[in-house]
Amino acid sequence: MAEAAERGTPASLYGLTPRLMAAIDEALRSGQDSHIRAFVRPLHPSDLADLVERLDSDDRRRLVAAIGDELDPESLVWLEDEIREEVMDQLGMARVAEAVAELESDDAVEVLESLDATERREVLRQIPAEERAVLEQGLTFPEDSAGRLMQRELVAVPPHWTVGQTIDFMRSEAELPEHFFDIIVIDPRHKAIGVVPVSRLLRARRPVRLTEIMERDFRRIPAAMDREEVARIFQRYGLVSAPVVDGDGRLVGMITVDDVVQVLDEEAEEDLMRLARVGGTNVNASVFDTARTRISWLLITLVNTLIASTVIAQFERTIEHIVALAVLMPIVAAMGGNAGMQVVTVVVRALATEDLNASNVRRVVLKEIAVGVVNGVVFASILGTIAGLWFGHARIGVVLGAAMVFNMVWAGFAGALVPIVIQRLRIDPAVGAGPFLTTTTDVLGFFSFLGLATLFLL
Amino acid sequence: MAEAAERGTPASLYGLTPRLMAAIDEALRSGQDSHIRAFVRPLHPSDLADLVERLDSDDRRRLVAAIGDELDPESLVWLEDEIREEVMDQLGMARVAEAVAELESDDAVEVLESLDATERREVLRQIPAEERAVLEQGLTFPEDSAGRLMQRELVAVPPHWTVGQTIDFMRSEAELPEHFFDIIVIDPRHKAIGVVPVSRLLRARRPVRLTEIMERDFRRIPAAMDREEVARIFQRYGLVSAPVVDGDGRLVGMITVDDVVQVLDEEAEEDLMRLARVGGTNVNASVFDTARTRISWLLITLVNTLIASTVIAQFERTIEHIVALAVLMPIVAAMGGNAGMQVVTVVVRALATEDLNASNVRRVVLKEIAVGVVNGVVFASILGTIAGLWFGHARIGVVLGAAMVFNMVWAGFAGALVPIVIQRLRIDPAVGAGPFLTTTTDVLGFFSFLGLATLFLL
Repeated sequence: MAEAAERGTPASLYGLTPRLMAAIDEALRSGQDSHIRAFVRPLHPSDLADLVERLDSDDRRRLVAAIGDELDPESLVWLEDEIREEVMDQLGMARVAEAVAELESDDAVEVLESLDATERREVLRQIPAEERAVLEQGLTFPEDSAGRLMQRELVAVPPHWTVGQTIDFMRSEAELPEHFFDIIVIDPRHKAIGVVPVSRLLRARRPVRLTEIMERDFRRIPAAMDREEVARIFQRYGLVSAPVVDGDGRLVGMITVDDVVQVLDEEAEEDLMRLARVGGTNVNASVFDTARTRISWLLITLVNTLIASTVIAQFERTIEHIVALAVLMPIVAAMGGNAGMQVVTVVVRALATEDLNASNVRRVVLKEIAVGVVNGVVFASILGTIAGLWFGHARIGVVLGAAMVFNMVWAGFAGALVPIVIQRLRIDPAVGAGPFLTTTTDVLGFFSFLGLATLFLL
Repeated sequence: MAEAAERGTPASLYGLTPRLMAAIDEALRSGQDSHIRAFVRPLHPSDLADLVERLDSDDRRRLVAAIGDELDPESLVWLEDEIREEVMDQLGMARVAEAVAELESDDAVEVLESLDATERREVLRQIPAEERAVLEQGLTFPEDSAGRLMQRELVAVPPHWTVGQTIDFMRSEAELPEHFFDIIVIDPRHKAIGVVPVSRLLRARRPVRLTEIMERDFRRIPAAMDREEVARIFQRYGLVSAPVVDGDGRLVGMITVDDVVQVLDEEAEEDLMRLARVGGTNVNASVFDTARTRISWLLITLVNTLIASTVIAQFERTIEHIVALAVLMPIVAAMGGNAGMQVVTVVVRALATEDLNASNVRRVVLKEIAVGVVNGVVFASILGTIAGLWFGHARIGVVLGAAMVFNMVWAGFAGALVPIVIQRLRIDPAVGAGPFLTTTTDVLGFFSFLGLATLFLL
């Protein structure tokens, strides 16, 4: 198929092929709503969301208008926040309420989260009382908590049941989640006491009691736990689903791995963006929003560099005498800054994955200092030689080399310690550590290089 | 419990608590092997791996020696490559062969991958012929492909079977994977024609035919597909497992979501590390290894800054006349470099997640240029004013402002386009784009600022 060749992968894997994309574009251009509906109908909700995201604002409005009531509620869940808001505004709150009512509770809560307080009340008002109560309770959990991530739909059965009874119950009960991977065994006070993987239940004989095959040693996720930690636990223990419990250990919901995959991806993206000082926008954000978030981060860089400039200003007289210093000084700052950011990145990542903790902090910091010494000496030799030869002035090389060693050792020490200290202060190390470090490596780089030059070269 | 308080989370969630860690440390110190074994026995393989990673080399040897034959083979899978090699060398290849034989095929292949060719042959030689054939075939797939990620153990049944027949088969058949989430329906030529989620099978009545309940529209993963793309498909369609097929569509294995979670995490880490120019080491690597990989990346920075320095050197005479230029010039370079890396990070991430593609490339590049213009003007005004006031010289402010606009627009244009072009050349944009961009923003920053100053201020 042409689509397959274009992507280099079998067309069957993606619903939204370039060819289909072109056909939809064409249909949007000529306003053939029935064509658009026919193209969109077979798409997976995730592909439909992708299509909606790829269009520009005008085409998006046209598409949503053309699809109308046929819009699969689940596609709302797959949209990114900003675009979801846009689409929901267009649909109107009555239609959003219908969509929310059709979703599983974790998805419904996610959609409700992106509405403002007034809209949210309006939508909730139009949802049947029983479902509304579930959703309102879901919204009482703190943002980014396990309680928000979990679904209420689950399979919970008493421990005295047999495999046969459990299977018969599942065959007759209509109100079960569409997919589930574990059956949760609860005692009369609704406490989760065991978990039976569905594949194990399937392989057991009908008269076997659940207590004989259930896993008693399993992870109960507290509803208040941060979703990032939930994701780490899923990853650490290779879980596909886990029961969520309240403060008294009572079963309140279930988290499945598909939600966790989204969380892991979002958290990794967040760290990446924060380290690069980008903040919460993506390629689909508007020029204005993008410029605004970028500016707030660039202001930090501006303050950094202004501080560094005032350091340089102290040495104007030295530079006037030896202009070669102006040529070489950015090197010391840049090398220190880069070496420092290497350390910060490794340490921030290790903190996020919990590879760095009380038991190895000391070892890691000492190691980074040692690496700083090694790298400092290596680059001092290389650069000192280059600078000495370039300006025919051996002492410039020595001063540059010495400044380089200082700055590299500082980069190792501060690069490792600063993120750790910042995290102890309950600030996100991915945000705070980079700017602090670059400022200090700039300041120290310029100060040590120009200071040593003033002492030994004038 | 004390452990719970220490971590701020229930102790039951993590097997390896700080208190247990201290007890094990103590036992290692005093050489009480039987104590060590007793502490380690109840640990999840993932926790045991974590413990092994946290210890230093000597303690690690002692621990592995103390555990001896009781070492859970699965814990090898959870170890990171370097430490896994260390542990396997200590265990000896005969013991490694026993361990590999006990693992599921995807895990076994992963362990074999980290052995060198000679060791691998030695291990394979000691594994029973039938299992060896499966593993050898697994190793024929390219590294980082779906074929390496998949397990051979799966449940495949013919389409004419009923739900009852399928359940009876699963109850009597011993050789099934421990956990599975989908049953794969295959035709006589072994082609995957349908998938039945286990929870759906459980809820169907015994006489129902599989053809009535199976999903016909599902994703078949080609064995040669890159594992990163496999992960994106799992994430995009919320999959928990998927059949893997060969070039002729015949079923060869199954990938489950737990493997995908690891891949997603590793790939996100890889991009993060590459953008920060860190490369493949983590907090547990040795000083020597760390210094070595860091140096190779810092050499790139060195070349960058040396190129920038030669640009500055062209303007020595100008700087001699107006030393204020030396004070201000790092600002232009740093702001351009930071703005550029913001764009590169967003674009690299969007390329990785496939949010950026043929349909929106033009829009994204134009948007980044527009953002560059906006940010350039904003910072030109701020900085131009500061510089003008600082040095009491309005024209310095104008020159600085103009250079800033140039550099910011370039950062937007090149930051967006360079990663895209680099990816088309089949180079990893996370590696190539950053250094190229920083070099150009440095060069352009110094050149435009000092050049304009030479023209208008001398």
